[in-house]
Amino acid sequence: MDIKVLGRKELEKVLEMSAVIDGVKSVYKQKSCGNTIAWPLVEHHFHEKSAVSDIRSGGVFGDINLHGLKMLNSFPLNVKEGLPTFTGILMLFDSTNGIPLGVMDASYITCMRTGAAGAIGVQTLARPDSEVLFMLGAGKQSIFQIAATLICMPKIRKVYIADALNLENAKKFALACYEKLRDDFGVDRPDVEFTSVTDMATAIGESDVVITITPSRSPVIKKEWVKPGTHLSCIGADMIGKEEIDPELFRCARVYADDVNQCSNVGEMEIPIKTGFFRKEDVVGEIGEVLTGVVEGRKNSEDITIFDATGLAILDLVTAKKSIQLAEEKGLGTIVEI
Amino acid sequence: MDIKVLGRKELEKVLEMSAVIDGVKSVYKQKSCGNTIAWPLVEHHFHEKSAVSDIRSGGVFGDINLHGLKMLNSFPLNVKEGLPTFTGILMLFDSTNGIPLGVMDASYITCMRTGAAGAIGVQTLARPDSEVLFMLGAGKQSIFQIAATLICMPKIRKVYIADALNLENAKKFALACYEKLRDDFGVDRPDVEFTSVTDMATAIGESDVVITITPSRSPVIKKEWVKPGTHLSCIGADMIGKEEIDPELFRCARVYADDVNQCSNVGEMEIPIKTGFFRKEDVVGEIGEVLTGVVEGRKNSEDITIFDATGLAILDLVTAKKSIQLAEEKGLGTIVEI
Repeated sequence: MDIKVLGRKELEKVLEMSAVIDGVKSVYKQKSCGNTIAWPLVEHHFHEKSAVSDIRSGGVFGDINLHGLKMLNSFPLNVKEGLPTFTGILMLFDSTNGIPLGVMDASYITCMRTGAAGAIGVQTLARPDSEVLFMLGAGKQSIFQIAATLICMPKIRKVYIADALNLENAKKFALACYEKLRDDFGVDRPDVEFTSVTDMATAIGESDVVITITPSRSPVIKKEWVKPGTHLSCIGADMIGKEEIDPELFRCARVYADDVNQCSNVGEMEIPIKTGFFRKEDVVGEIGEVLTGVVEGRKNSEDITIFDATGLAILDLVTAKKSIQLAEEKGLGTIVEI
Repeated sequence: MDIKVLGRKELEKVLEMSAVIDGVKSVYKQKSCGNTIAWPLVEHHFHEKSAVSDIRSGGVFGDINLHGLKMLNSFPLNVKEGLPTFTGILMLFDSTNGIPLGVMDASYITCMRTGAAGAIGVQTLARPDSEVLFMLGAGKQSIFQIAATLICMPKIRKVYIADALNLENAKKFALACYEKLRDDFGVDRPDVEFTSVTDMATAIGESDVVITITPSRSPVIKKEWVKPGTHLSCIGADMIGKEEIDPELFRCARVYADDVNQCSNVGEMEIPIKTGFFRKEDVVGEIGEVLTGVVEGRKNSEDITIFDATGLAILDLVTAKKSIQLAEEKGLGTIVEI
């Protein structure tokens, strides 16, 4: 049996964000039809090294039929020795017959599908005429969110970038944005203005869409800054204790999740639920249910909408399959007989 | 980061049974020192296809420092379409820093380390002057057991092979044994006689060592056939309901396990424990404890000893590491930047 092996550099060459967006949407839809499964998380803490390794696995069936896993390793102390602090490998199988399809670097796949997830939340729930995006966070993940959102929302003409901890970082990020989007994602948008901000209240007041992607453990965005009609895609909070937005926002918003149970356990809604600002039963629905039309999305232009996304291993699988297809078309990657 | 990718054919060329035996012994010893961990099994049944996929993962620390997993897929209906019914891929990481080391076919690794495990049981617990081996089972795994046992026990001069369901199969197997051992394992033993048998009672009565590796679900080997001083390595029973030897044997034998908890749940001792022939507390110890000298092995030449081995994912990891080392020395395998 031949499998395709793809390294990060090859994935950067082959994976197109528009294809990833299509793939992630198809998985969200299959999930809403009950055709997906997440298998139990396996997690090991190397306490003496402050390190953690985990295995995230599952399957997407229906007309997709993939299963597999990724093993991720986070070893923060590696930085001292000049080694990568984060590594991961993904393996993909065809669920119709168990035949292996490919093995690849997991980190780029994760960044791409996370960008797509945030943007699908925007496309599905924000006002279609949205023009201004506020990006909280200027780390490695932010550019993926912006690239995907500009693809999904062609009317966006302004992007504010804030880094609550490091203004300099946001400035540099904003300056590099246009070129990075053009060179790394083929998103050539000279008409979009990229501006770093410190006055978050004013910038958010002007924004139609907010995306949060920071490791924050206390709310950064206040309810009173958010104008009616705003959509928020909350991407950063993906484990217990993480929180980026005012829990009061949950009281007045229409709230959606990628996976209701997972979000209530580890997502942006975790703390609002625990502190009584919100109830799991008040989630309007999962994003896949909105995409398939089972659940209503935004009702009017005054609604505040929240998409809480914690990430699903099944998104990686379909993204991995896309990269194998694209790598075949482009003649990239290594074919290995396994 | 560069990783080594090894397919089955390359593994067949690089892996030497003697190196695998050394590796498996070192893991058993680390296990007895508390330096290993098995992470929870993830298992999914595709009921409509009678198929199952599972993820077996864990780590060996101490002076070995490896963690990783294998994902195995068993799709028996594939046989209709000429596809492999069994596939598996293993990934290996360095536990000191989380850096990936390699990805490879898991099936050959599993066969090799299972052969080594059975033979280590023999070497550790059988009488050192053992000359006759009785092999129950003439399937794909049996040759690995024989190869490893002949390496560990150079005085063996006769091997009986029985297939309770298919005599023809045992005959063919016995005829091919010498050449297969020489060609596939470099075990060139023209002095050993390989004989298929139907009269199991007589053959077992002549044998010093018995290895069982069948998918049997009821006892095949009777207590009265087994002479004093015999060692039995029970390898086939690795899930609930499997059983190859008379539960009465547990009443009179010194019993050892690769992992006491796992064996009592899914090993050869599972049914004897459930039916009251044996108690988990009566296991003398784990094989690693005998190897490190913490627990006594055979006491005299009249003891009947049983080694119940259910297989540990950590054995695969150290075997995978050995194959990467040997592949580097021999210039085999594909190096891929991940």
